[in-house]
Order: sequence, then structure tokens, then C-alpha cells
Amino acid sequence: MGFKIGLLGLGTVGTGTAQILLNAQGRHPLVQEIEIDRVGVRSLDKPREVEFPEGVITTDLEAIVTDPQIDIVVETIGGLEPARSLILQAIAHGKHVVTANKAVIARYGDEIFTAANAAGAYVMLEAAVGGGIPVIKPLKQSLGVNRLQAVTGIVNGTTNYILTRMQTEKGDFADILADAQRLGYAEADPSADVDGLDAADKIAILASLAFGGRIKLADVYCEGIRQINATDIAYADKLGFVIKLLAIAKRIGEVENAPLSMRVHPTLVPQTHPLASINGVYNAIFIEGEPIGQIMLYGRGAGAGPTASAVVSDLLHLIGVLKSGDRSELHPLLSCSHDDYCAIAPIEELVTRFYVRFLTQDRPGVIGKLGTCFGDRHVSLESIVQTDVKDNLAEIVVVTHDVREGNFRQALDEIRTLDAIHSIPSILRVL
Amino acid sequence: MGFKIGLLGLGTVGTGTAQILLNAQGRHPLVQEIEIDRVGVRSLDKPREVEFPEGVITTDLEAIVTDPQIDIVVETIGGLEPARSLILQAIAHGKHVVTANKAVIARYGDEIFTAANAAGAYVMLEAAVGGGIPVIKPLKQSLGVNRLQAVTGIVNGTTNYILTRMQTEKGDFADILADAQRLGYAEADPSADVDGLDAADKIAILASLAFGGRIKLADVYCEGIRQINATDIAYADKLGFVIKLLAIAKRIGEVENAPLSMRVHPTLVPQTHPLASINGVYNAIFIEGEPIGQIMLYGRGAGAGPTASAVVSDLLHLIGVLKSGDRSELHPLLSCSHDDYCAIAPIEELVTRFYVRFLTQDRPGVIGKLGTCFGDRHVSLESIVQTDVKDNLAEIVVVTHDVREGNFRQALDEIRTLDAIHSIPSILRVL
Repeated sequence: MGFKIGLLGLGTVGTGTAQILLNAQGRHPLVQEIEIDRVGVRSLDKPREVEFPEGVITTDLEAIVTDPQIDIVVETIGGLEPARSLILQAIAHGKHVVTANKAVIARYGDEIFTAANAAGAYVMLEAAVGGGIPVIKPLKQSLGVNRLQAVTGIVNGTTNYILTRMQTEKGDFADILADAQRLGYAEADPSADVDGLDAADKIAILASLAFGGRIKLADVYCEGIRQINATDIAYADKLGFVIKLLAIAKRIGEVENAPLSMRVHPTLVPQTHPLASINGVYNAIFIEGEPIGQIMLYGRGAGAGPTASAVVSDLLHLIGVLKSGDRSELHPLLSCSHDDYCAIAPIEELVTRFYVRFLTQDRPGVIGKLGTCFGDRHVSLESIVQTDVKDNLAEIVVVTHDVREGNFRQALDEIRTLDAIHSIPSILRVL
Repeated sequence: MGFKIGLLGLGTVGTGTAQILLNAQGRHPLVQEIEIDRVGVRSLDKPREVEFPEGVITTDLEAIVTDPQIDIVVETIGGLEPARSLILQAIAHGKHVVTANKAVIARYGDEIFTAANAAGAYVMLEAAVGGGIPVIKPLKQSLGVNRLQAVTGIVNGTTNYILTRMQTEKGDFADILADAQRLGYAEADPSADVDGLDAADKIAILASLAFGGRIKLADVYCEGIRQINATDIAYADKLGFVIKLLAIAKRIGEVENAPLSMRVHPTLVPQTHPLASINGVYNAIFIEGEPIGQIMLYGRGAGAGPTASAVVSDLLHLIGVLKSGDRSELHPLLSCSHDDYCAIAPIEELVTRFYVRFLTQDRPGVIGKLGTCFGDRHVSLESIVQTDVKDNLAEIVVVTHDVREGNFRQALDEIRTLDAIHSIPSILRVL
């Protein structure tokens, strides 16, 4: 008994997937039961790293998602359209879907899972977050026995690569981004990565699994890493931190349906925290719950091999269920069982520590004034250090205790009006 | 539709499991469908942290495993007997089994899985290795699409706690062991932990899943940490290493059925390796395969909460399959599909780097003689450093390149016969 798949896309992930499936020896025996029936591409003329028999490759993607022969559609074309429509068509034609497309799932997950549940189809997405790291299935299936409190991830390899190089080379963002683009670690248009949008897609997906509700992507607060510079990395280092782009989903408070804090931003991470040592293109997802405590899942977050491993692991799960189940009821751990939206707290409600760097006039009393403005807003300070004087400006670095972000912003608004304040080059949150 | 479980044992893990099940709110909705029908304990008189209705607790464990009402038996009593017999009886009576018992599985897995396959029963063991870390299911289900090359684990929390404290406090083994015993981190009889036996059980289980074959526990080479001392930890630190008790299963060579190297021993781990920063009672499992590359799974390796999380995740999986399947065929990703034994290479065939510390007479020419003995056996050296002279004895530390362990041992045998050699206090492998 074999399972026929239709593969949409033959780029990095599609090629990697085909390479595993066409070369099944030494892998789980079930891999041999998967047969690539059709492959849909945009152009037939492109040179390919994998060969298929005559007639397997086609440019007619609709013919694949509607083909009654095909059991499972594997979507690796990426982007929003035609990916979304093809996934929905495949579901409407009774096919199960495996996708690596975080953008489509983060935006249209609601529509897609509603359609899948109605059609009795599975939509699998292990490859959408964290490359080959097994994180979607553990969150959906194993870790859910816990009351999960927080999911904190380094889920974008490009920004972690850039920040790691800025850290080790003491270089500035623009130079290292340019070099990363030259080396193929960053796209020509880097905004999806460096502005945090890709990480926001991914944490929305992880949060919906961890907290059992759908997430409106627009509710995820998002700051990228363009403003990070060598000065702040050096100060962070002195204070015992590294700067990482974190994607965080956290239950605020102890109540069962307490709202979530959902955010992506550069963060000062204590050097002793397990996430601090995740470097280069590696990803890691740090999960906290009761009673499991803390766990972390680590691996390469992108690339043909890791992502294809995740795609084929989804195929394996599907086949396992299809072989042993009677399909009268969807497997409760593989289907999407929630259809409510999670409540998300506005960023002003966040309680966190902050790091702020001020440039001020070099005159007595400035620290006192800063301290008064913060104190008036109940912002308690952990440390306040005046460092160098350059061009007649003093540099003051403040780290707060946990404060409500709204209060902190009000204090900063007041501080900005002080004569002695020249500018506030950096405001970063601290884990 | 509820599932009735019989819980054997109400110690740390059993109590933790009951606490999750009796307090299901805020967890995966399926947890509410699990009902603790009977609980088997040794004595009714002990005070308990969880309360059950009259008649649930019994000392008649056989009555539980043979009770036709019970769907799933959860074994948390540990040890070899009566655990083994109760598991086999439960299977014979058509029950599925969830166990946290690595010792039984590592020794009697063959017998237990053969019986389970014949009876159409599942035996689940996520809790047997790595506490709450999801590692058994990912290895069995997701990572198997890769050609796995190596599984390297810090899988014993007690020894990692002791080694971490030796590292940070520069203390000696015996003192820190005594303190660990006082604090409850080590047993009164610590040998299962400090001699590496517990880690050997666990790597045998991980290897059988990663490499799809059964493992004879007697074939796992095993060295504990009793001989580790502050001197070697300090030298390792200077050379850029930390010392960890690693459990390693590795395919030797590229051929599909090439033999495995299976071993547990203290190891010098480069400070930049992800395993180097796993400290205290934490566990981590580092997995390498094609095409996924490297991944690592990290968390607390023991304790009521993490282990109970793993037990209940197994229950969730079982229920998912039982609800959606027709039970005519065992789910291929949850059952044990291999019944051959893996070939294991003798330790002499291992190719690794070594660290050796010699105490020698303080006279010229000793290093030359050492170099000659090693050279004669094709043992190539990475570094050879003479350090302190104490009590007229010089200390020489050698790190080799990758060498065949058999050759290395022959060279050492010859070196031991040299007049100038006083003793060889430490021989350690290097990752």
C-alpha cells in the first residue's frame, strides 16, 4: 500500500523533500511507502537537482490539487498566493496537506483549519517553524499536558546570524547585513527577517498551539533589529547580557484564560540563560510550563535538509494515522481543535525590565532628574551608570526592574522634555 | 467516552502523574478523559500527597493489571521486579502500558515488545529517558526520516550536578557527592548514577530507537565519574574543555548497517559545543543525522513534574490513537517495529581523541620517549605539555588526535613499562 503525494514547488525545500523520498534507504521503513506522483513547478526549463520520470513534472498546479489519485499535497512554494488557494483547493478535494508555509498559516490558518476540519483533512506544518527542530508536534501532542506559561524563541536564523556576527566582530548592522546578503544568509530585500515579521508569523503559530487558541497576527507587537549597534552590544556584554531577537508568547497572570503578551523584539538575554548561547543560523524554542519546568529545543532553523526533514516527518505521521485509523474521526492530536481567538494584551500592559541609553549634557544633576522622572511613574531602577563623555555629551545607561511598559513610556516622554537630555539612542527590553 | 487507567506506584512519579490527571483544567482537553480507576501501592498506611475515593488504592497490584475494566496500566514503581512481571501480565490481559522504567526496558525490552506486538498492545516510555524532554517520540516518529549518525546525551542528572559543582567550586568528587547525598540529589547508594549504569540503560533505549534495532546492554561500554578530580577539571578548562558524563551511540562508518559504538564515559567536551553549557540537574540529547544536521533537546531530566509530564503525554498519545483508530493494525509509529539486534563494535575499534595525564620522573628525554611510544602505535599527538613539578615528579598532559582506541591502549601499555613513568592518574576521551 503506497501513498501518492503531489509536490508543489521544487525550490530549496521541495528539492530537499524529493531527495529524502527518492533516497529512502536507511530511513524509517514507512518512507518507502511514499511515492511522488506529480510535481508542480512554475517553469519546466529550469535545471533541477533531482530527476523525475517523463510526465511527473507539470506547470499545472491546479491539476495536482484536484487529482483524485493524489492522497497528500505537499506545499513548498511559499508566499501567500497561489499557496493559499492551492491549499484550500486540495482540502476541498479531500486531500491532506503538508506545508512549510508560515506566512500562509499565520495569516489564513483560521480559514484553512476550518476548511480542513469540515473536510476531514489534516493540515501539517512542522516545517513552518524551526526547520527540522521537532517543535510543532511536541507542542500539539506532548507538552499540552502541561499548563504552558511561556514560549520564547530564537526563530529567525538570518537575524540571529547578523546579531551573532555583530557580537563577535563588534561590527555594525549595515556592514554585516550587506555581507550576509553577499553570502546568501539574507535576502536582497531583508525586511521580512530584519524587521521581525517572519519571527512574528512563527510565534503566532507556536502560541496558537501552546495556548490552544487562534492568534490575530496584527496583535503581535513587532520590532526588528535595524537599530541595534555595536555600542549597545558592548554595553550589554559589560552588564552580562547578549542581544537576541526574541519572539515571545507569554500568559500574563495565573488565571487560565488570562490574556497573552505576544511580541517580537531585540532583547537583552542574561549570558547564563540557555537562549544566550544559541548562535549563528541556529534556532531554539524555550518552553515553560507546569509541571514540566523549562525545556529547550535547538537546531538549524532553515535550509533544505532540516526543513525537508520536517516535511517528511509530517508525511510519516499522516501515513501512520491513515494506516491505523478508520478515518471516521479525525485524530485529536493531529487536527486543529480550537476555534476561539486568544485575548492579547496591549504592549502597554507588558511588565518587563528595560535597558535605556541616554545622551545627555555633561552637567551635574542629570542622573537625579532621570531618577525623579522614573520614580514619579513607579519605574524602579536596577542600575544607572554614567559612562563616557564624548563631544561634550555624557552617556548614561539605565536598567530598570520589572515595570509596566505603559508607565515606563510615560516616564520617557517626560524625560524627553528635559533640557539636559540630548537624545535616547536605545531602548531595549531585558529578559 | 473515558479511559480508565490503573496506576502502579505512588512515589515521586506516580504522585506527579496523579496530580496532573486530577487537576486537568488548563491542560489539553483530552486529559479530562483519563480516569484513575485503581492505584496500586505497597502499603496503605503511608501518608499521601493526593487523595483518592475509598477503594481506589489497593496493595493488590495483580488485581489491577488483570482488571478487565482497566484500559491502560501506568507503571511507576521502578526496579526490575515486580515491575517486569506486572508489565507482562498487563499486556497479556490486553492492556496498553505506559512506563517510566528505563531499567526494565533496557534489560527486558525484547521480551516486553515481543509480547506487546503479539497482543496488539502499545508500550510507551517517554518518561524513561530525559524526564519531560520530548525525545522518545521525536526519535521514533519524526527524526527517523533522517539517516541518524549519532545520539550523544547528558542523560543522568546526578552526575551532571556533581560535575557542574566540581567545575564551579573546584572541589573534589567525594566531598561533592557527600553533599549531593545530603541534599537529596544523589542516592545513599550512588553507584547506578556515578558508575554510569543509569546512563547506559538510557543510551541503550535511545540507540534502539535511533538505529532501529535492539541493543544488548552488556555491549554498552561503561565508565563512571569516580576517578574525576579537580586537577583534570582544571587542565580541561585551560585546554578549552569541560568534563561531562556522556552517553554516546554512534554509527561507525557510512554503510547502512555499519556497527555502532555504544559507550558511557566522562568526556572532555569543547567549551563551544552545545552540550558544554548543560549544567546542574539538566539533561540534553544531541542528535546528528542526514539531512537534518544537528539538533539538541534540553530540559530537567528527572523529578516529579517533568517525568509526570512525559507519562501523561504518553497517555495522551495512546488515547489519540485509540479514539481515531480501528485497532485492526497497530499504529506503525507507536509500536516497536524492529526485532533484530544492532551490531556493536568493541571499544578497541573506537576512533576518538584522548586526554592523558602522566606523572613522570623530572628528567630530560621523557617527552621524547612518550612521543616515540605513541608514534610506534600510530597515535598522533595534538599537544603535549609539561606543567608543574611537585615532589620531584613532573606532570605531563597529552591530547591526541583521533586514534584507534586499541592502538592507544597498546601504546599506554608500553609507556607503563618505562622507568621514567611514575603513574598515569587520568585517561579520558575527548569529544
